[in-house]
Amino acid sequence: MTSENSYDDERIGRARVNDSPELLAYYEELAKHEAGALWTVANEIEPWYPQPKSVPVLWRYADLRPLVRKALPLVKADDAGRRVVMLVNPGRRELSAAVGLLYTGLQIMGPGEAMTAHRHQASALRFVHEGAGAWTVVDGQKLKVGPRDFAITPNNTWHEHGNEAEDHPVIWQDGLDIPLVNTLDANFYEVHPELYQRPGPVTNSSLLSYGGNLLPYGAEKWTRPYSPLLGWPWEPSYHALCQLARATEGSPYDGVIMEYTNPVTGGPVMPTMAAHLQLLRPGQATRAHRHTGSVVYTAAKGRGVSVIAGQRFEWQQGDIFVVPSWAWHEHANLDQGEDACLFSFNDFPVMHSLGLYREEPYPDHDGHQPTTNP
Amino acid sequence: MTSENSYDDERIGRARVNDSPELLAYYEELAKHEAGALWTVANEIEPWYPQPKSVPVLWRYADLRPLVRKALPLVKADDAGRRVVMLVNPGRRELSAAVGLLYTGLQIMGPGEAMTAHRHQASALRFVHEGAGAWTVVDGQKLKVGPRDFAITPNNTWHEHGNEAEDHPVIWQDGLDIPLVNTLDANFYEVHPELYQRPGPVTNSSLLSYGGNLLPYGAEKWTRPYSPLLGWPWEPSYHALCQLARATEGSPYDGVIMEYTNPVTGGPVMPTMAAHLQLLRPGQATRAHRHTGSVVYTAAKGRGVSVIAGQRFEWQQGDIFVVPSWAWHEHANLDQGEDACLFSFNDFPVMHSLGLYREEPYPDHDGHQPTTNP
Amino acid sequence: MTSENSYDDERIGRARVNDSPELLAYYEELAKHEAGALWTVANEIEPWYPQPKSVPVLWRYADLRPLVRKALPLVKADDAGRRVVMLVNPGRRELSAAVGLLYTGLQIMGPGEAMTAHRHQASALRFVHEGAGAWTVVDGQKLKVGPRDFAITPNNTWHEHGNEAEDHPVIWQDGLDIPLVNTLDANFYEVHPELYQRPGPVTNSSLLSYGGNLLPYGAEKWTRPYSPLLGWPWEPSYHALCQLARATEGSPYDGVIMEYTNPVTGGPVMPTMAAHLQLLRPGQATRAHRHTGSVVYTAAKGRGVSVIAGQRFEWQQGDIFVVPSWAWHEHANLDQGEDACLFSFNDFPVMHSLGLYREEPYPDHDGHQPTTNP
Amino acid sequence: MTSENSYDDERIGRARVNDSPELLAYYEELAKHEAGALWTVANEIEPWYPQPKSVPVLWRYADLRPLVRKALPLVKADDAGRRVVMLVNPGRRELSAAVGLLYTGLQIMGPGEAMTAHRHQASALRFVHEGAGAWTVVDGQKLKVGPRDFAITPNNTWHEHGNEAEDHPVIWQDGLDIPLVNTLDANFYEVHPELYQRPGPVTNSSLLSYGGNLLPYGAEKWTRPYSPLLGWPWEPSYHALCQLARATEGSPYDGVIMEYTNPVTGGPVMPTMAAHLQLLRPGQATRAHRHTGSVVYTAAKGRGVSVIAGQRFEWQQGDIFVVPSWAWHEHANLDQGEDACLFSFNDFPVMHSLGLYREEPYPDHDGHQPTTNP
Repeated sequence: MTSENSYDDERIGRARVNDSPELLAYYEELAKHEAGALWTVANEIEPWYPQPKSVPVLWRYADLRPLVRKALPLVKADDAGRRVVMLVNPGRRELSAAVGLLYTGLQIMGPGEAMTAHRHQASALRFVHEGAGAWTVVDGQKLKVGPRDFAITPNNTWHEHGNEAEDHPVIWQDGLDIPLVNTLDANFYEVHPELYQRPGPVTNSSLLSYGGNLLPYGAEKWTRPYSPLLGWPWEPSYHALCQLARATEGSPYDGVIMEYTNPVTGGPVMPTMAAHLQLLRPGQATRAHRHTGSVVYTAAKGRGVSVIAGQRFEWQQGDIFVVPSWAWHEHANLDQGEDACLFSFNDFPVMHSLGLYREEPYPDHDGHQPTTNP
Repeated sequence: MTSENSYDDERIGRARVNDSPELLAYYEELAKHEAGALWTVANEIEPWYPQPKSVPVLWRYADLRPLVRKALPLVKADDAGRRVVMLVNPGRRELSAAVGLLYTGLQIMGPGEAMTAHRHQASALRFVHEGAGAWTVVDGQKLKVGPRDFAITPNNTWHEHGNEAEDHPVIWQDGLDIPLVNTLDANFYEVHPELYQRPGPVTNSSLLSYGGNLLPYGAEKWTRPYSPLLGWPWEPSYHALCQLARATEGSPYDGVIMEYTNPVTGGPVMPTMAAHLQLLRPGQATRAHRHTGSVVYTAAKGRGVSVIAGQRFEWQQGDIFVVPSWAWHEHANLDQGEDACLFSFNDFPVMHSLGLYREEPYPDHDGHQPTTNP
Repeated sequence: MTSENSYDDERIGRARVNDSPELLAYYEELAKHEAGALWTVANEIEPWYPQPKSVPVLWRYADLRPLVRKALPLVKADDAGRRVVMLVNPGRRELSAAVGLLYTGLQIMGPGEAMTAHRHQASALRFVHEGAGAWTVVDGQKLKVGPRDFAITPNNTWHEHGNEAEDHPVIWQDGLDIPLVNTLDANFYEVHPELYQRPGPVTNSSLLSYGGNLLPYGAEKWTRPYSPLLGWPWEPSYHALCQLARATEGSPYDGVIMEYTNPVTGGPVMPTMAAHLQLLRPGQATRAHRHTGSVVYTAAKGRGVSVIAGQRFEWQQGDIFVVPSWAWHEHANLDQGEDACLFSFNDFPVMHSLGLYREEPYPDHDGHQPTTNP
Repeated sequence: MTSENSYDDERIGRARVNDSPELLAYYEELAKHEAGALWTVANEIEPWYPQPKSVPVLWRYADLRPLVRKALPLVKADDAGRRVVMLVNPGRRELSAAVGLLYTGLQIMGPGEAMTAHRHQASALRFVHEGAGAWTVVDGQKLKVGPRDFAITPNNTWHEHGNEAEDHPVIWQDGLDIPLVNTLDANFYEVHPELYQRPGPVTNSSLLSYGGNLLPYGAEKWTRPYSPLLGWPWEPSYHALCQLARATEGSPYDGVIMEYTNPVTGGPVMPTMAAHLQLLRPGQATRAHRHTGSVVYTAAKGRGVSVIAGQRFEWQQGDIFVVPSWAWHEHANLDQGEDACLFSFNDFPVMHSLGLYREEPYPDHDGHQPTTNP
């Protein structure tokens, strides 16, 4: 591996051109032709390693919840489109991103509310924070979701949501790849021509069809680039994680970790975003590693601490935090008696599809970073 | 579609050469050079449609069970290798095949018995008929199986079996592709150098790891050509089928049908054999169709009748029957109150991999064959 | 690797049951129920390693050519369907196979002859031995082929052939997977409803479209399981081989060897058969190895000797010989000044698709087999 | 398709919230928590269709060439890293991109110059504008390139370049995905520890090995995510295009168009960038279409005009122009006697891998856009 002191821009192999009157005149001439000299920006655009503008951030649910609830009387759902408080990374404000090219926000739906239907090229996912009664209709399939359930709205599927509870709001977390798709100049948006879909007769049909260890046979082959299974309820997901914990030690960096999976491919649920659920055993502290790709974490159970790029972030259920690309990170369960779980979503499928995924373990101090805020 | 009367070997485009003294002399000369005239066999080796030597057969469990139990005192497991009564198609005796290039048999293991370990290039699967207490160790993983559970022993994995019950035998059905692999001149066999494997500490670890709708993440990628999930217990499999029955009408030819699936690919459990479980609703009678590929069926629940190439075969739980390639077949549940289930395995993955799969619906009489034995 | 002396059927782990009056009675009882005792055939159907019935054979073109030419006046093409002398392995006569489940034969077409069109589920390939003027129409595309050109007629494509030379016959070699497809009970045959196809306006269009290092873009994606490129003329194929010989040492077992390739997948030209072209440098003698899968070789250039299962077979251009599955084989160029080339086709795609491919080097005598016929 | 007048942000289904003192106070409170209200940006970040900041630009080679040659005496290659005039889209200056997330520039190497070796996560390609004598060493393989040859330097391969001509410089065009990889926070850069690679003994070995219609067999399987063939010389590429022109009408939007292809997959040469070569017949004018994905075109032969988003851009050999994502574009050959060719590279593989590719034909005026600059 490259040693730290090799990151020297004065060495041969890097751009080392000093300005001169002659050169400055040349640069002006180039600019007139919509051109420039590569060596003036080469070291910046060819960095030694990723230089994300995103920074690690943790949002406490205890802080966000009152703000989100405040939005309920403030704006009508129909006027807002979606009533969402989005979480904005200080380094990514121009993209409305929480980290890297990922967007996240907390959406609130009042009792009995129902949104209109739309679709967009961006892909979306949901993780429910609180409230029974939420539903979503995705390409005509109605799906009910409860606390800590995970669900997806793949790219370009019609979708609309609502809350059929009579007396309490639902708050769920949205995750989207909007910044990615916008940066790639590939986003589209349509309002449903009839404003609302007509759902099919069977609720939760994707769970009924794809929720087991056998797949429907003989039907038309599923060829879309995303999962036909649209929801992963909390109970069986947590159960699967506990079962795996009986069979394996787990990863030194992540504890016992599983991926929500497209059952017809064994791959990620959507082509741009993957989602994971991981379990830290009581008292477990993982080792640090780093990888390309950005991650949004939500504490799903218990309490713990994550050290990201040397900063400590304590979390408990409902808290959301982000790890920028190539930042060292490690997690610990602060409870000695109960396990702790983190839900997360990321852009790893992009990294893998484009040949950009890299990973390395933290080499020093038995795998633990020194921290700056004790 | 080709009409029946086009199957005429006298028409142009077929070999129509009559013997003559000159030709017979020529054929003899060819034979001396390990050669022959194509036109003497062309119509036979290029048939209008598949001409399987296999015939439809049904074996009643009520007949087989006493025969299988008789083997228990007759031969020692160690001497037999495996104590199995194999089912032999009258048209495939030279290959010991039940149908096509598929082998099946009923294996009995007495209380406390344990077989030695071996491996072979042929792939194997199991479907348990009766008795709790059976176990198998596959490449060091111990798996327990009970009645109507399905399990696999993929090609070239070490495996050994036993029965840990104290007071009753276990009878399970083996399914193997031995005739296929032998015909392809590709079978290998090894006895385990230590006769027995040392199983890992966790029983049923593949179920614990791969039995949910999430997959283990971060471990070494599974790249073998078969499923890392080795067992599909009856209860969740039947439950999955009942769930699907709530979401879908099912297939007109097969009722509600699912495939036991490799969770990391969404494909068949092994590269040469697939397995299915299907449910016929009370009183349901499916339409007939035919396809390339051979199938071994086992009645897993209830009672019914299948019409195969115009012959009626009544079945109840435990009975085994076969459908040769390209034979018309349809199924009916004879009970008006309970559903009926068929487990089956087949060589469809071979058909698909080699570009040989074809299927067509029975065109007449509303999809039902006239039968010869009413 | 398993040592030779471990192939002992008396050891534990093999079937070792002796007949007894009681057992013989039991076997009779089983036979009445279309059943049998596995242990009576287990050692035979689960061999230690492949036991092909095929044997190594070499057919001299000098012997075959007069026999093939004799067929020209003896039978009319229209009556024969195809006028072909097929090469029949002494161990595979019942399947009309040259080796394993592969068929080969020499087809002769007189000046001006044109065959009728048909199609079959079996796949076919051609390697031209002599005569300019041959053509084939495959699914409406006309392709011209000359000496040592390779061409394919993938499964279920309409095809018809002819010879537009005015004064000499064409002899080409057919290779088909008929024995495989018949054994799998999956063959179909149809005569073209109009007896002849109407070829499109552009001859050799697949060569024009797919014969370079760029692929047509923007057209409908090619999704059939075989190559859209249908022909590989000798000159560029031999040129490619000579170029590779400049860049690489080649394989110790095969010299410089290339595969005729489906340009849209990089894989074999058809799902059941692959074809190769290999070059032995002047005087080169390769080491022996063996693998599952059967091979038909045709000497395309020069002269040499192949040792197969310990037997020497000398060959020169036009000769055809076969290597059964798992037989040791090695090749040598007997000329000290010119390179020698072998064209071959095989069933390796079947072995790979079904997870059955194995290969091992000959361990003794510097990789060379002792021979029995010096 | 959605009609133009449906792009109305006042309709239900879009965010339509007006500011109020109460809301403004709420937004300030959110900002304190690194949060925001989605509805304040929703219509902007969920546009009706892609809103690229890039604009169409054409750079005349006649303008650029003197500027590029001027750099030769101005900066030493060793100091510049690479002596490149980059082409910068007025809408993408902050990313040094020519269009979308693609970078391009003209690199000049003086007689006898040799650059040092480095590698980066970004992928690179070259298209030579003028000068014989250029070479590149990619992961130890030396490749020589001449005018209009295309070559690649896949992600993370070591590479260094030079010009072995004695008396003239070489100018080639670089294409890289640097803006993409930086935006994804995934770029890495290393200087070669020995500054220069030691090339293997065979020049052009990838062309020798992979330049035909057969692939090397028996070697270790190529599993990297890019093409093992590294160069596509002009002559055979143009020949392939002319051959295809004999077999096909071509695309209504692109004329006769081919893709430079990875021979082991039939797919694009690298996971993030594809390259094409297209031919416009004498006088041919294509119809307009648009698609997601950005394209950099270089006129490789002849002269013509492209209409992009309603603007006319005339070009001749050496000129470079860009088409932003979702911009209408059409091409015409202005010569009535000679064909015209466009080389291009793009980010279509990104669009396809991430499920973001869309395309549509221009619906009006027989497929031709009205132009604003006649």
